[in-house]
Amino acid sequence: MSQFLQLVPPDEARKLLLSLLPVPFNSDGAAYFINTEIIDTSLSMGRVSAEEIIAPHSLPEFPRSSVDGYGVRSGDTFGATNSMPAYLNLIGEIPMGDTSSYELKTGQCVLIHTGGMMPKGADAVVMLENTQEIKHKQAGEQMNGENQIFDERGSHRLDNEIEILRPVAVGENVILVGEDVIAETVVLSKGRRIRPPEIGGLFALGILSLRVAKKPRVGIISSGDEIVDPNNQTLPGQVRDVNSYTLSALVANSGGEPVFYGIVPDQMALLKECAARALVECDAVVITAGSSASTRDMTAEVISSLGDPGVIVHGINTKPGKPTILGICSGKAVIGLPGNPVSALINGYLFVIPVIGKLLGLPENTSPRSTGLPYIFARLTVNLPSQAGREDWWPVKLTPIPKSIDLSSDKNQPPESIDVWQAEPIFGKSNLIFTLINADGLLRISPDKTGISVGERVEVILL
Amino acid sequence: MSQFLQLVPPDEARKLLLSLLPVPFNSDGAAYFINTEIIDTSLSMGRVSAEEIIAPHSLPEFPRSSVDGYGVRSGDTFGATNSMPAYLNLIGEIPMGDTSSYELKTGQCVLIHTGGMMPKGADAVVMLENTQEIKHKQAGEQMNGENQIFDERGSHRLDNEIEILRPVAVGENVILVGEDVIAETVVLSKGRRIRPPEIGGLFALGILSLRVAKKPRVGIISSGDEIVDPNNQTLPGQVRDVNSYTLSALVANSGGEPVFYGIVPDQMALLKECAARALVECDAVVITAGSSASTRDMTAEVISSLGDPGVIVHGINTKPGKPTILGICSGKAVIGLPGNPVSALINGYLFVIPVIGKLLGLPENTSPRSTGLPYIFARLTVNLPSQAGREDWWPVKLTPIPKSIDLSSDKNQPPESIDVWQAEPIFGKSNLIFTLINADGLLRISPDKTGISVGERVEVILL
Repeated sequence: MSQFLQLVPPDEARKLLLSLLPVPFNSDGAAYFINTEIIDTSLSMGRVSAEEIIAPHSLPEFPRSSVDGYGVRSGDTFGATNSMPAYLNLIGEIPMGDTSSYELKTGQCVLIHTGGMMPKGADAVVMLENTQEIKHKQAGEQMNGENQIFDERGSHRLDNEIEILRPVAVGENVILVGEDVIAETVVLSKGRRIRPPEIGGLFALGILSLRVAKKPRVGIISSGDEIVDPNNQTLPGQVRDVNSYTLSALVANSGGEPVFYGIVPDQMALLKECAARALVECDAVVITAGSSASTRDMTAEVISSLGDPGVIVHGINTKPGKPTILGICSGKAVIGLPGNPVSALINGYLFVIPVIGKLLGLPENTSPRSTGLPYIFARLTVNLPSQAGREDWWPVKLTPIPKSIDLSSDKNQPPESIDVWQAEPIFGKSNLIFTLINADGLLRISPDKTGISVGERVEVILL
Repeated sequence: MSQFLQLVPPDEARKLLLSLLPVPFNSDGAAYFINTEIIDTSLSMGRVSAEEIIAPHSLPEFPRSSVDGYGVRSGDTFGATNSMPAYLNLIGEIPMGDTSSYELKTGQCVLIHTGGMMPKGADAVVMLENTQEIKHKQAGEQMNGENQIFDERGSHRLDNEIEILRPVAVGENVILVGEDVIAETVVLSKGRRIRPPEIGGLFALGILSLRVAKKPRVGIISSGDEIVDPNNQTLPGQVRDVNSYTLSALVANSGGEPVFYGIVPDQMALLKECAARALVECDAVVITAGSSASTRDMTAEVISSLGDPGVIVHGINTKPGKPTILGICSGKAVIGLPGNPVSALINGYLFVIPVIGKLLGLPENTSPRSTGLPYIFARLTVNLPSQAGREDWWPVKLTPIPKSIDLSSDKNQPPESIDVWQAEPIFGKSNLIFTLINADGLLRISPDKTGISVGERVEVILL
């Protein structure tokens, strides 16, 4: 039973693990090693693109008005003001969704709706708010004050005349062909997580299916003589399997496909056999060890037996999660997590999610959406000591900071209330699953600190 | 065609909408108006609890060691040091997952692993690191330096003797019965989003199914004469339906169930008939109008015809999204979104997601996880003007701030580099879907500002 581990800082450990995984994309972007499949665009939410998408045509495909108003020849509006409007002859209305036969001549305008197709001859649109429709006067009709004004310029007026109250420049309120996307350009690169905007862009171009990364299969093995199936009654000394389910949820939520291998007793031969099978059938394997040192050592031996280089990190300088084991076997990540559910889950966030990200072809550290770890900043409510050289993760409750706490006065500085949340550590013994249930997130104390003071801004990963 | 709207600030509009929706839970927590169903715990990730879960038994169910070490009577270790250890007689090893027949007497200890069941008589565990196993010396064996030290105290030694190098207090390194959860207490309240920790806690207690809120059915109607099915070729003047798909993805991702009602032409009777059917069949309805003012007015009229009070907000003081219409008809939210895909999507984030949250029984504004809108803070890279009184949403690209930009010197202040991201607005015409695709998030400029300066900290909703 080895008592001491060679601890590695977590960031360094993760970097090493990811660097030893085969790179999904070649540098030229031409080939990849990840598995891909073609799926319907409508089902692609959350998936990761595995091909460059090229626009089959420009968007918009025709010049469109971006407002409700009147299509005009811009030159006809020059100098127009409220007191000296330009008068244009309304020749009709552009039907939505249809091509129009109108061709605008000098002095003419056409009613057009947002998104409507610009008629020939028109090069700008005057917003409705900047126009006035003129009602045709009957001969001998009684004038009121307003009409009186119009009457002074009666010689200009015709049926269907429009007053233009402001000038427009060429192209004003018009979306030109290709202004959104130009035909034949790349609209989506590889390794992008599909969100609602991507789905919208693909449908706008009529791209109804695309190639995405297959969900990486992550084999999940629980070991430990004390672990029993949650369907069974527990006997004294036994506990129910928790890690298979928490890690499955984590894997599925991060874009992977969890594959259950059940509970394996603490017997080397059985564990080796099960892990070897999982390694063949899956793209990565996670083993949650029994919680004792002896079974953790067994996990390390199993990982080393599966293929070269085997164990690359045995022991992480983090709390909780010190006994975490990272391995690479035949080009696949094999991660040994501590048996304690809290340690297993926190280190699942720190190591399993990034592995899935890499297997999906997501770029590392380029934007928050690629990390898979949504985090926020918050103000700490108490002093929190920690051990220098060790990264600590504390479960915290987040509550909104009352507005009255905003003490900022320097207007050049952003108000402090922008840190909307305060983080209150949940004390008590770590490694209790219900501590984590009561937590909104995990507060990180970086290894170079010996603690964090009350009121300091802290980084919180949302659970 | 009405030209002017009575604009309402977005926060106020959302608050009004939510306040008029029937409250999911009674104040006494006894009854709710939301639909619920019982599902397997293993399938509950992301769902929302709709019952209080009571612990059927305590956790742990038996006292457990939290470390690898030796179970002891704490009194036997008092005063033990490296130079003056306590010597205890090792009587055996606690098997994992089994009850032990050991009963510890004074001067005895037992090998126990993390998670092992404490034997009778033991009240603490000494960590392995703070002990030394003593090897039995053969008579006449050659001594080395280390053994020499032991030899000086040879009279104490027996076979299977353990040196205890530090004292332990009563209860040290032991997790007591019920320390995680006490039987009959509430372990999960209503209205909680199920995450991996909740799944773990439920399985730890053997709770294999639970009552959750049914996914609210959200009917999605696209209207507009210019809109065609994306499966079809577009003719000049036509554009493909995008909103049905982006909003479906948004709804599904927020815990709702999207229900397609297809594309309805701009005809009052058809739109009324379709919306009325959707209102009966769904828990909420979203209509994306054709983009012209006339069809937006049609949406408002349709909403008012569906039931009282009808339209409650017509026009939001936000950009993009000004023409958004909010309605309540027969106790259900009916939301009219602008036809432009960017406006529709952004206002889907702002209004549809909160409605789904309320229908799921999620509390409002109590923690970031309940908002459904993950956001981060970032530093703005340029000056960004905005119109006072209007809330602006800008698509931004997020890039990590290079470490070298960290100029903080005051050690009492958190380093500025904690704002890991810088936000670069994507300029160009708004309302282009590919602008949104290139964005990582949406930057909010609150209505009380006339702009944000370069370097200011800004709030960014992640897309």
